[in-house]
Amino acid sequence: MSARNVLVTGGAGFIGCHMCERLAARGDRVVVADNLLLGRREHLAMLEGGDFRFAELDVADGAALDTLFAEERFDAVVHMAANSDIATSHANPRVDLVNTFQTTFAVLDAMRRHGVKQIVFASTSAIYGEAKGAIPEDHGPLVPISHYGAAKLASEGFIASFAENYGMQAWIARFPNVVGDRSTHGAIHDFARKLAATPGRLEVLGDGTQIKPYIHADDLVDAILLAWERMDARVNIFNVGGLTRLSVRRMAEIVVEESGGNARIDYTGGDRGWIGDVPSVEYDTALIRSLGWTPRLDSEGAVRAAARWALDHNG
Amino acid sequence: MSARNVLVTGGAGFIGCHMCERLAARGDRVVVADNLLLGRREHLAMLEGGDFRFAELDVADGAALDTLFAEERFDAVVHMAANSDIATSHANPRVDLVNTFQTTFAVLDAMRRHGVKQIVFASTSAIYGEAKGAIPEDHGPLVPISHYGAAKLASEGFIASFAENYGMQAWIARFPNVVGDRSTHGAIHDFARKLAATPGRLEVLGDGTQIKPYIHADDLVDAILLAWERMDARVNIFNVGGLTRLSVRRMAEIVVEESGGNARIDYTGGDRGWIGDVPSVEYDTALIRSLGWTPRLDSEGAVRAAARWALDHNG
Repeated sequence: MSARNVLVTGGAGFIGCHMCERLAARGDRVVVADNLLLGRREHLAMLEGGDFRFAELDVADGAALDTLFAEERFDAVVHMAANSDIATSHANPRVDLVNTFQTTFAVLDAMRRHGVKQIVFASTSAIYGEAKGAIPEDHGPLVPISHYGAAKLASEGFIASFAENYGMQAWIARFPNVVGDRSTHGAIHDFARKLAATPGRLEVLGDGTQIKPYIHADDLVDAILLAWERMDARVNIFNVGGLTRLSVRRMAEIVVEESGGNARIDYTGGDRGWIGDVPSVEYDTALIRSLGWTPRLDSEGAVRAAARWALDHNG
Repeated sequence: MSARNVLVTGGAGFIGCHMCERLAARGDRVVVADNLLLGRREHLAMLEGGDFRFAELDVADGAALDTLFAEERFDAVVHMAANSDIATSHANPRVDLVNTFQTTFAVLDAMRRHGVKQIVFASTSAIYGEAKGAIPEDHGPLVPISHYGAAKLASEGFIASFAENYGMQAWIARFPNVVGDRSTHGAIHDFARKLAATPGRLEVLGDGTQIKPYIHADDLVDAILLAWERMDARVNIFNVGGLTRLSVRRMAEIVVEESGGNARIDYTGGDRGWIGDVPSVEYDTALIRSLGWTPRLDSEGAVRAAARWALDHNG
């Protein structure tokens, strides 16, 4: 595959920085657009000195994007900018409206105006809502229960209509929980922070029975790049996620184990941590596995690696 | 069912005015919010003097909605405000972003702030994109090909997340082509206008083979009110549409027949009238029919009634 000029929105974020490193490693020019609200400039340290540019801007700002697209001649956009903190938007649904959906619309409209034809999109299993069983890509109806899921579904809708209307091609990865180094929030971080504050006790929201698959960011990026290379429909939708599942209880135990301490774990009770949280996620990844993808780490391995990093960085 | 105070957004539009009349007939107070961009004040003539209020405002304008919600204590919102002209938004995708999607978000956010718990939503078969066969409600994946379909899918997503987050209940009617009196645009109107200009010849975009079910607005409103009364999940999604299908060719013939003239019909060729048009729609309405609904007019009857009205009003 020849070198391309790729815009990675949200590239300073947790998953974004892993994506940027992989693109740079294969020889692409990488341009990151990020408002540094959730992303961190230092996550991109490994790209400095290479064919790399960092543009600090809000991806929902169409005028700022327009300038960037005019300066660069992008071959493709990997669109990862989003609000990634599902729990917070209950109090303010505009957070996901603007940061998760309007970012997508702004990117699509810039692509339309500047003739960019490829978009790779970080979607989510949250668009499936509380669907039961191993969810395949053709599951319906889609009834998200979080604004984050709604905003990602809204994004998918416009990606599809832009693809059809302006001859673009899209790769849409729907994934649940991703963990790994440079992650900035989520349960593993909460646990690490709590342990730093009170080493003898770890309070866990809910009853710890929520059970989900976890995937390491590097394995996720592998899957996305493989799909981008191999799938060739106008709109390519695929699930990707850990092949095994892990309970929040086991996750808490792993974090305590990795901390080297012996903290007591207390549960607040209830079958979910916050409104919009999905208690049990199961996931059909047959499509991406049929292309030869398999994760190097299982859920426990991914969580353990992430826990080590979070503990080393004080949450 | 006791009388309610119902906000009908887009109530001066084609389908909206039929809905308003039915709500008024069952004793509800009806408040219409409409910017009169596509709607017409005179469509609501039958409601004047009753328990009725007309508020000229843009439903995407959250502040205007906020004032209206503070003045009225709504029991429910029937949200029909949207861009209804699918073909135009190819050139400007912001039309559907603002008029079809942001209207929905603004309505939902006003409902959240003012504690309104019921929303009835006019969705569309366009969210299914080019799906083949008789499409059921659980069809997936949803890959809309028009911005209109994308904006309605985006609306459905946020309706679902608002319902979950704030204890609302939603009825989502997904329907294809609706025809009838007070319609303001669409193929029947184009044909009537063309015949008025050149009575001897009717030019039809495409090859006339596009085949779709048509439903009369009154039959659609029947289905929506029945679902609202009988379906009781948090988010109730149902298809509704004509049970028979009609080709564009037959539609053109009906308009010519009803005109009393003998115009020659010419076809421009191609399997669709515009980008985003879906050449063949088939539709599974088993769910709403299982509740006892059946349309009074078949596709031909509905189109014939609409053609008479359009011809009487010079398109």
